[in-house]
Amino acid sequence: MTPSSRSPDELPVAALLAPDILALLDESPETIATEVEELHPADLADVAELLPEERLAAFLSALPRARAADVLEYMNEDARTVLFEALPAEIAAQLIEHMTPDDRADVLDELDEDRADEILEEMDDDKAEETEQLLRFESDEAGGLMTTEYISVEETLSVEAALEEVRAAARSGRREAMYAVYTRDAQGRLSGVLSLRELLAAPPGAKVLDNAWTEVVRVLPTADREEVARAASDYDLIAVPVVSESGHLMGVVTVDDVIDAIHEEQTEDVQKLGGMEALDEPYMSIGFVDMIKKRVGWLSVLFIGSLFTATVIGYFQEELSRADILTVFIPLIISSGGNSGSQATSLIIRAMALGEISPRDWWRVARREFQFGLTLGVLLGILGFARVAVWEWFGWAAVASSHPALIALTIGVSVLGVVTFGSMVGSMLPFLLRRLGLDPASASAPFVATLVDVTGLVIYFMVALAVLSGTVL
Amino acid sequence: MTPSSRSPDELPVAALLAPDILALLDESPETIATEVEELHPADLADVAELLPEERLAAFLSALPRARAADVLEYMNEDARTVLFEALPAEIAAQLIEHMTPDDRADVLDELDEDRADEILEEMDDDKAEETEQLLRFESDEAGGLMTTEYISVEETLSVEAALEEVRAAARSGRREAMYAVYTRDAQGRLSGVLSLRELLAAPPGAKVLDNAWTEVVRVLPTADREEVARAASDYDLIAVPVVSESGHLMGVVTVDDVIDAIHEEQTEDVQKLGGMEALDEPYMSIGFVDMIKKRVGWLSVLFIGSLFTATVIGYFQEELSRADILTVFIPLIISSGGNSGSQATSLIIRAMALGEISPRDWWRVARREFQFGLTLGVLLGILGFARVAVWEWFGWAAVASSHPALIALTIGVSVLGVVTFGSMVGSMLPFLLRRLGLDPASASAPFVATLVDVTGLVIYFMVALAVLSGTVL
Repeated sequence: MTPSSRSPDELPVAALLAPDILALLDESPETIATEVEELHPADLADVAELLPEERLAAFLSALPRARAADVLEYMNEDARTVLFEALPAEIAAQLIEHMTPDDRADVLDELDEDRADEILEEMDDDKAEETEQLLRFESDEAGGLMTTEYISVEETLSVEAALEEVRAAARSGRREAMYAVYTRDAQGRLSGVLSLRELLAAPPGAKVLDNAWTEVVRVLPTADREEVARAASDYDLIAVPVVSESGHLMGVVTVDDVIDAIHEEQTEDVQKLGGMEALDEPYMSIGFVDMIKKRVGWLSVLFIGSLFTATVIGYFQEELSRADILTVFIPLIISSGGNSGSQATSLIIRAMALGEISPRDWWRVARREFQFGLTLGVLLGILGFARVAVWEWFGWAAVASSHPALIALTIGVSVLGVVTFGSMVGSMLPFLLRRLGLDPASASAPFVATLVDVTGLVIYFMVALAVLSGTVL
Repeated sequence: MTPSSRSPDELPVAALLAPDILALLDESPETIATEVEELHPADLADVAELLPEERLAAFLSALPRARAADVLEYMNEDARTVLFEALPAEIAAQLIEHMTPDDRADVLDELDEDRADEILEEMDDDKAEETEQLLRFESDEAGGLMTTEYISVEETLSVEAALEEVRAAARSGRREAMYAVYTRDAQGRLSGVLSLRELLAAPPGAKVLDNAWTEVVRVLPTADREEVARAASDYDLIAVPVVSESGHLMGVVTVDDVIDAIHEEQTEDVQKLGGMEALDEPYMSIGFVDMIKKRVGWLSVLFIGSLFTATVIGYFQEELSRADILTVFIPLIISSGGNSGSQATSLIIRAMALGEISPRDWWRVARREFQFGLTLGVLLGILGFARVAVWEWFGWAAVASSHPALIALTIGVSVLGVVTFGSMVGSMLPFLLRRLGLDPASASAPFVATLVDVTGLVIYFMVALAVLSGTVL
């Protein structure tokens, strides 16, 4: 039962193991624990997800409780919820007690409230109370991400004594985040931090505070997961301490949860950028109705927005019937604006997410995007002018025009105007949404395109009226 | 010089400190090191970036070399490159020697080759050679991300002896990644891993291998950064070991570099999704010409693609002049397809990036998206039908039609067809690009929209011909 390789790109270990595990469950369940002893819990979680639902409880029961809890931490929410709904409350409580405090809260958060209460009843009082406190925070804020088991020592302790506390904690079987050791002052407030490496390197007799960093990067429990992720990534932290207003350490967010938070935040941003609500579930496992709900809302809003294009065209119908060549270029003109707008909005949303630009920068961004838009507009405008002029010159045009040069000029100038306008709308919309307290990532490519479609048509027809009045129109 | 708070959301510490530092540089540079002793190097890097270029070298010289090297690791590439071009090669070499091996390679990689060689000449031979080896890897693969300073012990060692090696390494002032301790067999191949926590918890007399995990998640030096990030995130690793084909440990990618890699990968994906090349530089610092180059390529391709819409409309010009009401709804119809396509492509690209779906899943995805597209198309089609029917009914329509019901039907059916088609194109294009060996993220929202614009018009006019032939047309 030794998979040949663990490279994540090759055939999943789990698919190879699941049939063996099923066989062992029938024949000699007591041997399972030793057979899979060396496997990473993440791989065992994959195996567990492949087993039939009714065998899952048997498989986890065949493992030592602490090991089963490890596996559960890596399982996907759906499978885990099914299991915890089915298990006797007492066993569920035992498994949950073996998890880290943040995972305990996550698991219970996924269950029905009644079921969660049943399980909490069966848990050790201290752990139950601690878990209930964590459950009060939103799952996407620091308080909801943190674990409450960390190492904190009195700042007056010696390095040797602090190290002894760390070793004792490691041996206790508790699941402390221990790569950062925090110090607290006489009032119990966070006063410093040192990495386990720094503690190991410090002279044994020295006071721990003298070897600690006293300027500790920290977040409040209400900080958004984006802020937590930024603190971890700007300062290369392995754990981000969560501190109350009064300066007391409440917990730490460990780097694995930071990475999960970054992934979730990014998934949300990409989905919003695509013009829909965030799924909050994997693509392959979301239900049909849920998927439609997440997509139909924005599609309908955009559709209704797009109806204004019909109004605009209806308004200019007389001009269009006099110069039907104008019709031919409608999609070209408006999609140029949508495309440049999509570029601008993606750039700004991403730069905002990375903290490269802040709301105060709107004016600098507006000036930059105006210049970019104008330059791109000139280049595309020349392309548009050339296309019309060349086609007319060679007589390839489907719709002949009496004033080919003027038509080409109309197209060129309209493209210039629409592309510039698209860049401006695309770059300013995220700032506007943020100002209104909304998520800037909602300034999706389709949203920008729709805004630019309607205004782009107006620009196009105004340019046409200005250039063609008295000749074609 | 103690900033009141370090929360990353408040006014940057750096802006407050930079003027003080400048004053101290003039008055008493020897006091700077102690004044900023407690600050995180990330904050000092921000200060350094705010100083005038010509004072930067003086500031870093006022710090101990190891501390200055720390600060340099957090500085942005541009400022760092300017500095390293200007410093005497000898001092540059000293600073670089104090960095971790992966950062050494990063810094030299950013310099002119001649300048990098000059600095390598001045470096300690061992370190220079090691750095040159790292420079051979691409900066976005495991070999280019890894550091070569890690802790590896012989597997037959006792836990106590292994711990002694860790403490010695911590005290040596070298910069090993030490939260994971690797064991090697008699042939020097990677045989196991245990976390520093597990080493601290293990019984002192036991053999280290007996306390290690022998199934070690690993990557090859040529693995893409996406694969490294996935290994770290699937298995909650603090360091990902990079192992040669023969099984020898070559280095480790630490979690801070994993987070940076995730951010860079995501930035690339969002920018490509927006319909442009990845910038590879922060939005605010990229040069004007570079920005135009990154944007104009795709815009031109899309513009030229869009020209086919003119061809299609030209082809159906006769029908349009007979039923000019059809013109009114052109933008509405084609943007519905673009919007549903944008949703589908964002969903699939993100699910691919997360490893939720693999190329083998294309058929399942196609079937799902066909169903989603059809459902969304029916809903929007009804909306479109209703809009036209109601407007005609109340006589609000700008362009009166002799057969309002048939026009409404044409719009409804066209929207249904275009939305379904958009979902299919948007979801299948990433698979197709991947199959062709291209980045699936290049299936941008504007790319999909342009494809759907052209085909959407064809669908629209075919539906119109089928429904309206003999009456309006």
